[in-house]
Amino acid sequence: MKHLKRLTITAGTALPLVLIAGSAIAQDAAAPAAPEMSQETKFVFNTLLFLIAGALVMWMAAGFAMLEAGMVRSKNVATICTKNIALFSIAGLMYFLVGYNIMYTGVDGGWFGTIALFDHPVRDAEDITYAAGGSDWFFQMVFCATAASIVSGTLAERIKLWPFLIFCAILTGIIYPITGAWKWGKGWLETAGFADFAGSTLVHSVGGWAALVGAIILGSRIGKYSEGRTNPMPGSSMPLATLGTFILWLGWFGFNGGSQLAMGSLGDASDVSRIFANTNTAAAAGVVAAMIATQVLYKKVDLTMALNGALAGLVSITAEPLTPSMPMAALIGAAGGVIVVFAVPMLDRFKIDDVVGAIPVHLFCGIWGTLAVPLTNSSAEFGKQLLGIGAIGAFVCAASLAVWLGLKFTIGLRASEDDELVGLDKSELGLEAYPEFGQPSSA
Amino acid sequence: MKHLKRLTITAGTALPLVLIAGSAIAQDAAAPAAPEMSQETKFVFNTLLFLIAGALVMWMAAGFAMLEAGMVRSKNVATICTKNIALFSIAGLMYFLVGYNIMYTGVDGGWFGTIALFDHPVRDAEDITYAAGGSDWFFQMVFCATAASIVSGTLAERIKLWPFLIFCAILTGIIYPITGAWKWGKGWLETAGFADFAGSTLVHSVGGWAALVGAIILGSRIGKYSEGRTNPMPGSSMPLATLGTFILWLGWFGFNGGSQLAMGSLGDASDVSRIFANTNTAAAAGVVAAMIATQVLYKKVDLTMALNGALAGLVSITAEPLTPSMPMAALIGAAGGVIVVFAVPMLDRFKIDDVVGAIPVHLFCGIWGTLAVPLTNSSAEFGKQLLGIGAIGAFVCAASLAVWLGLKFTIGLRASEDDELVGLDKSELGLEAYPEFGQPSSA
Amino acid sequence: MKHLKRLTITAGTALPLVLIAGSAIAQDAAAPAAPEMSQETKFVFNTLLFLIAGALVMWMAAGFAMLEAGMVRSKNVATICTKNIALFSIAGLMYFLVGYNIMYTGVDGGWFGTIALFDHPVRDAEDITYAAGGSDWFFQMVFCATAASIVSGTLAERIKLWPFLIFCAILTGIIYPITGAWKWGKGWLETAGFADFAGSTLVHSVGGWAALVGAIILGSRIGKYSEGRTNPMPGSSMPLATLGTFILWLGWFGFNGGSQLAMGSLGDASDVSRIFANTNTAAAAGVVAAMIATQVLYKKVDLTMALNGALAGLVSITAEPLTPSMPMAALIGAAGGVIVVFAVPMLDRFKIDDVVGAIPVHLFCGIWGTLAVPLTNSSAEFGKQLLGIGAIGAFVCAASLAVWLGLKFTIGLRASEDDELVGLDKSELGLEAYPEFGQPSSA
Repeated sequence: MKHLKRLTITAGTALPLVLIAGSAIAQDAAAPAAPEMSQETKFVFNTLLFLIAGALVMWMAAGFAMLEAGMVRSKNVATICTKNIALFSIAGLMYFLVGYNIMYTGVDGGWFGTIALFDHPVRDAEDITYAAGGSDWFFQMVFCATAASIVSGTLAERIKLWPFLIFCAILTGIIYPITGAWKWGKGWLETAGFADFAGSTLVHSVGGWAALVGAIILGSRIGKYSEGRTNPMPGSSMPLATLGTFILWLGWFGFNGGSQLAMGSLGDASDVSRIFANTNTAAAAGVVAAMIATQVLYKKVDLTMALNGALAGLVSITAEPLTPSMPMAALIGAAGGVIVVFAVPMLDRFKIDDVVGAIPVHLFCGIWGTLAVPLTNSSAEFGKQLLGIGAIGAFVCAASLAVWLGLKFTIGLRASEDDELVGLDKSELGLEAYPEFGQPSSA
Repeated sequence: MKHLKRLTITAGTALPLVLIAGSAIAQDAAAPAAPEMSQETKFVFNTLLFLIAGALVMWMAAGFAMLEAGMVRSKNVATICTKNIALFSIAGLMYFLVGYNIMYTGVDGGWFGTIALFDHPVRDAEDITYAAGGSDWFFQMVFCATAASIVSGTLAERIKLWPFLIFCAILTGIIYPITGAWKWGKGWLETAGFADFAGSTLVHSVGGWAALVGAIILGSRIGKYSEGRTNPMPGSSMPLATLGTFILWLGWFGFNGGSQLAMGSLGDASDVSRIFANTNTAAAAGVVAAMIATQVLYKKVDLTMALNGALAGLVSITAEPLTPSMPMAALIGAAGGVIVVFAVPMLDRFKIDDVVGAIPVHLFCGIWGTLAVPLTNSSAEFGKQLLGIGAIGAFVCAASLAVWLGLKFTIGLRASEDDELVGLDKSELGLEAYPEFGQPSSA
Repeated sequence: MKHLKRLTITAGTALPLVLIAGSAIAQDAAAPAAPEMSQETKFVFNTLLFLIAGALVMWMAAGFAMLEAGMVRSKNVATICTKNIALFSIAGLMYFLVGYNIMYTGVDGGWFGTIALFDHPVRDAEDITYAAGGSDWFFQMVFCATAASIVSGTLAERIKLWPFLIFCAILTGIIYPITGAWKWGKGWLETAGFADFAGSTLVHSVGGWAALVGAIILGSRIGKYSEGRTNPMPGSSMPLATLGTFILWLGWFGFNGGSQLAMGSLGDASDVSRIFANTNTAAAAGVVAAMIATQVLYKKVDLTMALNGALAGLVSITAEPLTPSMPMAALIGAAGGVIVVFAVPMLDRFKIDDVVGAIPVHLFCGIWGTLAVPLTNSSAEFGKQLLGIGAIGAFVCAASLAVWLGLKFTIGLRASEDDELVGLDKSELGLEAYPEFGQPSSA
């Protein structure tokens, strides 16, 4: 009985050890002894899951901020920090203002829900069934913010502050909620049988598509591609990038685990636990696979690839973190890590300048993870997965394109050449991230 | 039924969906089905809330450390790190040694409780009613430490290490517990009807008053104000300041959410959830308001103002995070963000040198948040709020003044001019925070 | 009734306040009112404890990464980040591949359990008794990773990447699980009566012994000891080292609190709470003791000693965080802080080059904490504690020695002199941690 380890040494434990029959993912577990879990207890457990998992996902905003701050050059660090705290704030306000109702109120198999300004979602009473309304809102809001966080990294070092933030407002208030409504809001994609447990497509690919379209319209940084070569522009702080990755890894337990949406039963608690184990295994395999791939290809390990390997593994397992066995989770994550190692130079070949590698990680591995669902979940079908990936990709690309172009031809998207060369910190904010020891690198 | 989103995709969930009548903030919610939640289950939920929320508030100590490390110049970074880990440690020991009993044992409408050395609070048995004694102690202790964290930022770059730590010992062992006893210990202010849910006044203003008095007695940094001008002394690392702000934002969910003090019922779980949603909304609105205000006033966004805007929103909602609607929470937080933008230069006009802007954030927004309680909580009254603000302000100012002056005229408060110019890291610790790339800035 | 503080101000609380008789560490607490806690509720509470505490311990991996990144010179920072994310990944895969079964399956008083590749531990059903199998696996895995994290700091700045990672794979897949099986897997040391609540010996000393043997075989960094003197090689970033320490402090609540292994009863919840309070008190006392000791010995406070004092207090209380009173916890932690202040220069006298001070913290304080158990836990005996410390130390030293020597005489352990002088970041990874402002220090 390995699960009993260490128990004998703890004076204060007197657990009644009842062998409960039933599968960890079975909802028909034979109910145990006399007293059943009360509805109120279930309610509190479910609410607690939303709050704890939501706090972990909120923490991912800090992870993106640190990852991106470490991956840009020092002359743009303060600006990327500004963008990250601002986009999280804007997401929180826009999702409350309009997004949540578009995504979840009255979708009913259709395309989007209610548009209702200030009809704020944390109402008092009538809609409480199994968890507190506020906890559900909080959990969904931090998912919405994650999609915007993905965009900021790709477009760093050249996009102006306010146009970027306006895009984030539209992404979090309208675009993300609409595609979210299709599946999680019980719209047409849900009816069609598309499967995406925690959002490889609904969150990560949405952010990834928006970033890809933005990168194409915005163009590459000055000097990034010249005379057929890709010029490396190394990030200013590897420890901050590492910290950001660890934060994201930690937050992902909330992202995937919380997406079980329930904790108030033996079956749900077991499922959340499996999700934790699979999530960690996929991330670990992503790191090791990326390290081995870079060692083989380039004869050196690349730290930024190892970090992106972790994120690749995490994104890949996000569409289905529950049904895979642990070896299968490792394979899914490892494939993600390899994808990233090959996709980063491929994007450079197309002169798509993705400062932090967010497109390979969130878009490509998001697609891979979504396609991998039928490998372990028999209720999912490959064709339906393709349908969801295609439909959401098409919509997000079209909508993003319209917004990016609208911004480009009105207030403008891109910093001037002078501003970009001197760095956005000085030109946009009038300050420096490291005033005492960062010297502006040229190009 | 938007709260059911995603449920159909999770294989392992079989939630009995009972529509539970009753308000999210109603304590008289009609009890659901047959089995009721047992007392022991409530006990565990409440304890869990204290432990999780307490750990989040403990994490705020790291947030203050990073925020302050990023906002001081590199020659003082190691010293501010030393002060932050030391003050958290001293708070943990002093609150256990005398503070907790002064604040909570036998106050009974009066001015303070028992003074009892080593009568440590985590006793075994007799006082257990609804949560474990240790969890309550832990939760209250980290609040006490927060008050001291506020002081360190304001007085950075010029106060000597040991005198500062002696002040922290007195603040956390005696001053904070006494004013805490007046309200949370059920002393005279509680009887008088003063309302402060999570401590806009009891924690943040207490730290803010102590910092203000200290800043006046200590004087400004050499070169900060000369010839009628305020000379900027930019912080050494904007990403660390951003990280610190994200940490504090995360920790605040524990600060405000845990102050519900109970999680073991439908009503309490719903209230904690509302508090999470309101807390996030106020912080987000503080960021956006501060960014817009700086853009309008200075034609540029200031990252440090955006960060302080988040903290301003958080402090402002702390006195009453439960009763406001979400739009109201946004207004309260936005007002906090604007207050900070105007208060920072105002303090400079009075030559009060607050290195990180802690006085605007924690004192001014603490007052604002406390005054805003009657806007949404009908059981609070404006006059009583003023009474609490005034009484606590007067006592903390007087007590702090006595301690600061006592230290000044005995062991001295301020580093020598030479030590300040060379930086406290070299003079106080004999090391450098960034030995390889930080060069001491002049002035 | 101090535990009722603030309750009256929270509108939403209507706690039934039943005075529950029974000791905080008593398992025979008189059961309260009519409805008892159901088995399923206990199951969910226990699972939740494993998941939350496991996530906190996972976060310690980031803490080690930041602590070590701050304590090495800038030319080795990216490499130490790579090692830390890689070792956590490798631990996660190896512990799943073989480690968990060696440690927990069928040990039965013996020396180790089953060797079974891919017999992955998160099975579905049959072994579920009181918590989900996945949550238990997750919690045990992060402990295993902690042991490897300890090694990386000591050997930094001179060990090659892949040999180090191979050692980590063997440590986490075989060595740690074997000694773990002796006690927590219910092997012979458990039978013999050895006591180690959360792993002062089983985790921290195991990592410490492996680091010590490695440091001796590897030798000191070039220039560290010359002409009888110890040359300081200051770490590149004190704020990162401070951040790492705060992360570890936070994570330790999961490390020690989760080791209660149960949360589903009044007694267990109270015990976890006592553990939180004692853990914090020991850490705080470790900081203060180390600061006072350095002030007395060297007339200056040393930040790195204060940080190691916190960790020393934490390691010292880990063998028994439950039974000590709070003053006793403070004494145990303070002794740890003093041990570190004396042990760091002592190791230098023996020319054992421990870059971050991990041997004093994790090995010496691990031994101290294990020996201190009988001071407060009457079921532990001094002789049996010595037996456990000696047996585990002998085995880990012998096994580590074999692996280190095997690696040394095959693929080699140590970077070339040129590579070490130029820094491992350039030689191993071909990049720089701070390309814009870190200049390679000589020596």
